[in-house]
Amino acid sequence: MGDQVGQAVDGTLYYIPYTEFVRVRALRGAPEQRVAIFADMCRLNALYMIARAGSGHIGSSFSSLDIISWLLLEEIQPAETPESSGDVFFSSKGHDAPGYYSALIGMGRLDFELVHKLRRIDGLPGHPDVATPGIVTNTGSLGMGISKAKGMVFANRHAKRQGRVFVMTGDGELQEGQFWESLISAANNGLHEITAIIDHNKLQSDTFVKNVSDLGDLEAKLRVFGWRVERCNGHDIRAFAETLASLQDEPRPKIIIADTIKGRGVSFMEHTSLDSDVAMYRFHSGAPDAGSYRLAAEEIMDRLQWRLSEIGASPLKVESIKREAADPPPATAQRLIPAYARALLEQAEKHRNLVALDADLILDTGLIPFREKFPERFYECGIAEQDMVSMAGGMALKGLLPVVHSFACFLSARPNEQIYNNASERTKIIYVGSLTGVVPGGPGHSHQAVRDISTLAAIPGLTLVEPSCEAEVGPLLDWCINEATASCYVRLVSLPWEIPYKFPEGYKPRLGQGVTLIEGSDVVLIAAGPVMLSAAVQAAEILATDNGVSIKVINLPWLNHVDGAWLRSALGNCSKVFCLDNHYVVGGQGDAVARAINRFEQRNIKITCLGLGDFPPCGTNQQVISMVTLDAQAIAKAISN
Amino acid sequence: MGDQVGQAVDGTLYYIPYTEFVRVRALRGAPEQRVAIFADMCRLNALYMIARAGSGHIGSSFSSLDIISWLLLEEIQPAETPESSGDVFFSSKGHDAPGYYSALIGMGRLDFELVHKLRRIDGLPGHPDVATPGIVTNTGSLGMGISKAKGMVFANRHAKRQGRVFVMTGDGELQEGQFWESLISAANNGLHEITAIIDHNKLQSDTFVKNVSDLGDLEAKLRVFGWRVERCNGHDIRAFAETLASLQDEPRPKIIIADTIKGRGVSFMEHTSLDSDVAMYRFHSGAPDAGSYRLAAEEIMDRLQWRLSEIGASPLKVESIKREAADPPPATAQRLIPAYARALLEQAEKHRNLVALDADLILDTGLIPFREKFPERFYECGIAEQDMVSMAGGMALKGLLPVVHSFACFLSARPNEQIYNNASERTKIIYVGSLTGVVPGGPGHSHQAVRDISTLAAIPGLTLVEPSCEAEVGPLLDWCINEATASCYVRLVSLPWEIPYKFPEGYKPRLGQGVTLIEGSDVVLIAAGPVMLSAAVQAAEILATDNGVSIKVINLPWLNHVDGAWLRSALGNCSKVFCLDNHYVVGGQGDAVARAINRFEQRNIKITCLGLGDFPPCGTNQQVISMVTLDAQAIAKAISN
Repeated sequence: MGDQVGQAVDGTLYYIPYTEFVRVRALRGAPEQRVAIFADMCRLNALYMIARAGSGHIGSSFSSLDIISWLLLEEIQPAETPESSGDVFFSSKGHDAPGYYSALIGMGRLDFELVHKLRRIDGLPGHPDVATPGIVTNTGSLGMGISKAKGMVFANRHAKRQGRVFVMTGDGELQEGQFWESLISAANNGLHEITAIIDHNKLQSDTFVKNVSDLGDLEAKLRVFGWRVERCNGHDIRAFAETLASLQDEPRPKIIIADTIKGRGVSFMEHTSLDSDVAMYRFHSGAPDAGSYRLAAEEIMDRLQWRLSEIGASPLKVESIKREAADPPPATAQRLIPAYARALLEQAEKHRNLVALDADLILDTGLIPFREKFPERFYECGIAEQDMVSMAGGMALKGLLPVVHSFACFLSARPNEQIYNNASERTKIIYVGSLTGVVPGGPGHSHQAVRDISTLAAIPGLTLVEPSCEAEVGPLLDWCINEATASCYVRLVSLPWEIPYKFPEGYKPRLGQGVTLIEGSDVVLIAAGPVMLSAAVQAAEILATDNGVSIKVINLPWLNHVDGAWLRSALGNCSKVFCLDNHYVVGGQGDAVARAINRFEQRNIKITCLGLGDFPPCGTNQQVISMVTLDAQAIAKAISN
Repeated sequence: MGDQVGQAVDGTLYYIPYTEFVRVRALRGAPEQRVAIFADMCRLNALYMIARAGSGHIGSSFSSLDIISWLLLEEIQPAETPESSGDVFFSSKGHDAPGYYSALIGMGRLDFELVHKLRRIDGLPGHPDVATPGIVTNTGSLGMGISKAKGMVFANRHAKRQGRVFVMTGDGELQEGQFWESLISAANNGLHEITAIIDHNKLQSDTFVKNVSDLGDLEAKLRVFGWRVERCNGHDIRAFAETLASLQDEPRPKIIIADTIKGRGVSFMEHTSLDSDVAMYRFHSGAPDAGSYRLAAEEIMDRLQWRLSEIGASPLKVESIKREAADPPPATAQRLIPAYARALLEQAEKHRNLVALDADLILDTGLIPFREKFPERFYECGIAEQDMVSMAGGMALKGLLPVVHSFACFLSARPNEQIYNNASERTKIIYVGSLTGVVPGGPGHSHQAVRDISTLAAIPGLTLVEPSCEAEVGPLLDWCINEATASCYVRLVSLPWEIPYKFPEGYKPRLGQGVTLIEGSDVVLIAAGPVMLSAAVQAAEILATDNGVSIKVINLPWLNHVDGAWLRSALGNCSKVFCLDNHYVVGGQGDAVARAINRFEQRNIKITCLGLGDFPPCGTNQQVISMVTLDAQAIAKAISN
C-alpha cells in the first residue's frame, strides 16, 4: 500500500484534451481498437496527473487501464443514482485512481479541468472518495471490495433493482484476510451479480507478490471457494471481452484473473523488464523523475499516433504546459524514517532477539537497511496486518523482541484487536506506525493516520511515543526497547520536515516528561512530532512579534502518559495551556494532558486542545494543514483570541 | 462466540478427585482405552466446573476432549518454560477452556483445587490466559491461533529450539478472515512444526455452521492453501493417533479435520440428536438447568463405571458436594437486550429499508424476534465481522439502513478500520454492541468490552449512546434512526440489572444532554448505563447517610458528545464532578465530559474520572466490580476522600 510522496515533475507536461476523447469514442471500427486507443490516452493523462501532483500510483493505473476502458466504454450501463437500477464499477485497491479518473474524464463523467487537480484540495483525492462523481465507494485500505459489493447486491435485491457490480482488486490485496472472509457468503448466496476482476500484475507495493507471500495456485483457491473462475490476458482486450461474455449466464459469483503487466504501456516501467528477484519496483507510487516522465510520455504519444494512423484516423492533438520546478524539500529538512532505520540497526546490534516484521512497506517504513544487515531476522508478512501482529505475539511469548511495522493508519486499526490480545499477555512488542498525521495530504483520509492515538491509548501497558526530530528518534527507541516494561507504539511522521528548533544534547527520555524547546511565560504550547512542534514554534514567533505574548513551547513525546509533577512544574505560573494534535481532538494527546491537569489541586489552568474534528481533506501539504487550521497562523490566531 | 451467563446449578454436584486421575493414568492396557476414560473423567469435571460457575461452554469442551486427552497423555512433550525446547498446545477458540483445564488438572499440571474455581477471581478465567500454568497464549477472540503458532515456530527456529505447536481451532472460527490470511505464509515457509486440529463439531455459537455460512469443501480449501490435510473421526482415539503418526515426516504444515460431535458424551447434548435445521443449540454456552445437569452427570458416571469394569479396573470414586441455590436475578431486574429487541422491531415496522446483520450471536444480541418477523431483512454474516461491516457499508450506499450487531468487544475492534471507512462515506449505519463493560465478569478480558468507546469515539460523525434502563432503549434507538444525521453506535449492557432509579416519563433524547436521576448540591456524578448509574445512585445514598454529602446523579447517555451549555446549567453551583466509566479511564466518557468542562470560562470545577486502568479481572460480577473499585462503596470512598 506504499505511498511515497515525491516531487512534481518540471518542464513540459503533456495531456490530451477532452475533444480528442469525444472523437476517439466515436471512431468506427472494431471496439477493441477504440478501447486500446482510449486506454493509452488515459495512460498519458494519468501520467500527467501524477507528474503534476508529484505522487500517485503509475504501475497499478497502467496495468488496469485496458480493463477499465473496456468496462466503461462497452460493458457498463451505469446506475444514474445510488438508488436506481444499473451497473457499478469500483476499484477495491484504490491505487489505480489516477487511471480510473482519467477514464471517467475521458468519458465526460468528470469535469475535464480536474485532470489538472490530482491530489489538490479542490480536485481529485489520492484514493477514491464518494464525493467525486463516478466513485461509488471509498477505498484505499485493502480487502474491503467484495464485502462492499455484496452489500450493494443485497440492497439491489431488497429493492428489486437490476444491476451488476464490477470490482477490481489487486493481487497483493489478496493477502488480506477480509478478501477470503468475503468470498464465502457470496458463493453461498449465489451473488452472480458480482464480477470481481483481479488485476494480476504480479507486483505489490514493494516487489513481486510471489516474493512477499506467494499466493500459490490462485485459480484453484478461488474455485474451491465456490466462485466461477476464469483467467485471461488483461491487455488482450478481445480476450477480456470474450471472457466477460462467457460469464453472462453464470449463477455463481464470478472472478476473472486478468494477467496484466505492472506499468503496462511504457517499456521501462513494465515489470516484465525487471529481473524477477528485483528488490524494489520503482514505479509503484510517487512521480517519476523528469527524464523518465518525458521518455514515458513520448513512448505513449508515439504509439497513439501510430495506432490512429493504422486505422486511418487523423493524428492526435496533444496539449502541453510548462511547469516550473517546485522547490525540493530543503537539504536541512529532517527525515525521521532514515533516522529510525539507523536507530533500529543500532538496537539490533545489541539485541540478538530483536526481529523486524513488515507488511509490504519495506521502503516506506525504512526497513531496507535492516533486511540487508539481518536478513534472517527480517519477516516480510505481506499485506496481512492481523496475521503479522498475532505472529509477533507468538514470537514475543517465545522470547523474541518483535518490532512490527506498517503505516499507522493500517497498524492502529486493522489489527487493533490483535494488539489488544498481545497486550493482555504482558509480553513486549514494539509497534512502529509511519505516515502519521494529516500530511502528506495527497493520499487522502484512508492514509492520513489521525486516529491512531485514540485507538491505542487505552490499551493497558502500551506506551505511545512520537519523536520530534531526527535526534529524538534514537533515544526514544532506546527507551522503548531498554526501559519500557511492556509494549510501545512509536508514531513517526514520514515527510521530510524543516525544523526550527534545536534538540538538547544528551537528552534522556523520562516517561511522561517533556522538553522545553522555547522558554516563555504567558502561554504554554504542548505538542509532539515535527509537524505540530514546528507550527508551535512559528506560532510563538508570530505571537511574540505581533502581540507581544510570550509562549513556552514544550515537546512532549509521550502521547498517553503525562507526569503530573513534571507538568505542574513545567507550567510554572502559566494558566493558559494549548495542546496541538496532529490527530483528532477526541482521543488525542490533548486528552492525556487534560487528564493530568484535571488531577491538579490548583484549578486556575485553562486548557484548550486544537486538532481535527472532521475527516481531513486531501490536497497539498500546506493546503491540508491550513484547512484543518493547524498552521502557525491559525494556531497564533486561536491563542490570541 | 456466544457467552450466555446463566445460573449456577444447585443441589448435588459431582467431580472426580485427583487421586483417581493418577490411578487411571497408570492403568495398563491399550492407551486408547486409558485416554477414553481420562477424557470422560475430564467431561464430568468440566461439567462440574461449568455447573458451579453458572457459565462456560459445554458443547465445545466435550467435542474436543478426546483429542486433547490423547495429546496431553500420549503425544506432547511439554516445553518446561516458554524459552526451552518442547511442544506446546493451545486452543485458538478458547471456548473449550473448561475441558482443557480439567485435562490439565487431571495431568497434575494445575492445582486440583482450581476445579472448584472456574470463572472466579482467584481461579480459572472463562477464556484462557497465560497467567494460568499450562496456558501458553491468550485466546477468546477467534482466528488468531495459527498466526500465533507461526510466531512461536519462528522464535523456536531463531533460537534453534526443537518443538512442535499443536493448535486446536473451531470450525465456526474458520469464517474469520485471519484464519485464511494466516495459512499462506505457513505454507510458504514450510512450517511443518505446526499441527492444526479443527474440532469440526459442525455447530457454531448459534446453530449449524452450514446454516450460518457454509464452509463448503473444507479439505479441498485447506489443501489448496498448501497445507497437508487429513481427516478423521475425532472421537475414534486410535484413528486420531494413527492420523497424527502418519504426519510425522511431512514437510508442510499440517491440519487435521477431526469430525466431532458437539456435546459429545451426553446423549441429549450431542448435536446429532438435533434436527439439522434446529434454530438454536442449547449447550453452546451457559450452565445447564439442574435437571439436565444431573441427567448428564449420571450418564457420564455410568459410562465411566462400565468402562472401568470392562478393563477389570476397580470402580471410580466420585466426590460430591451440595450447592445451595443461588439467588436468581430479581424479577424486577431490567433486561436491555429484550428491550432492544422490541425497539428494533418497532423501528423495522416503520422503516422498510431497515435490515439487521448479525455475526453468529443472534441469541445474545436479541435478534431472534427480528429474524422471525422479517426473515428477508435478516442477514446472518457468520463470525466474519469485517465482512459484515463492509457489507453494511455497501448496503448503506445503496439506500438500506443497516443495523449491525455483535458483542462490543469484537464489533469495536476487529472491524475498526471498516467502520472508519464506512463513516468516511457519510452514510448511515447503526452499530449495536452488546455485552459491554466489566460485567459479566466470567468470560474474561477478551469479552469484557471496556475499550469500545475509545476505539470509536474519534470517528467523525459517529455518535455513541448507552441506555441506562429498559425505558431508555427505545427513545435512544429512535433518536439514532430518526434524528441522527450520520452513523451511531449503541452500547448495551447485557446482564439483567437491578435498577434503583426511575426514568422520567415522556423522555426525549437531546444530543449531548443528560437526565438528572437524583437531585443534589455538593457533588455531581455523571455516568451512563445501568451498571454505573446503579452504583452512582447507591453511592449517593451512602454519602448522604454517612457523610451528609448531597450528590446529584446525572444519566448522560451520550458517550462522545456533551452539550456544554446544558452541562454548565446542570452543574449549577457544584464545583466537584465525578465521571464513572464502565470502561478504561483513558478514552472513556469522562474524557468527553472533561473536554466540555475545559471549554467553560469558569475554572473552579474539579473533575475526577473513575474507571479502569488495567485489564479487568475475571470473576463473579460482584468480585470484578469490587476489584476495579467501581462498586458503590468504592465510589463513595473516592468521593469522600
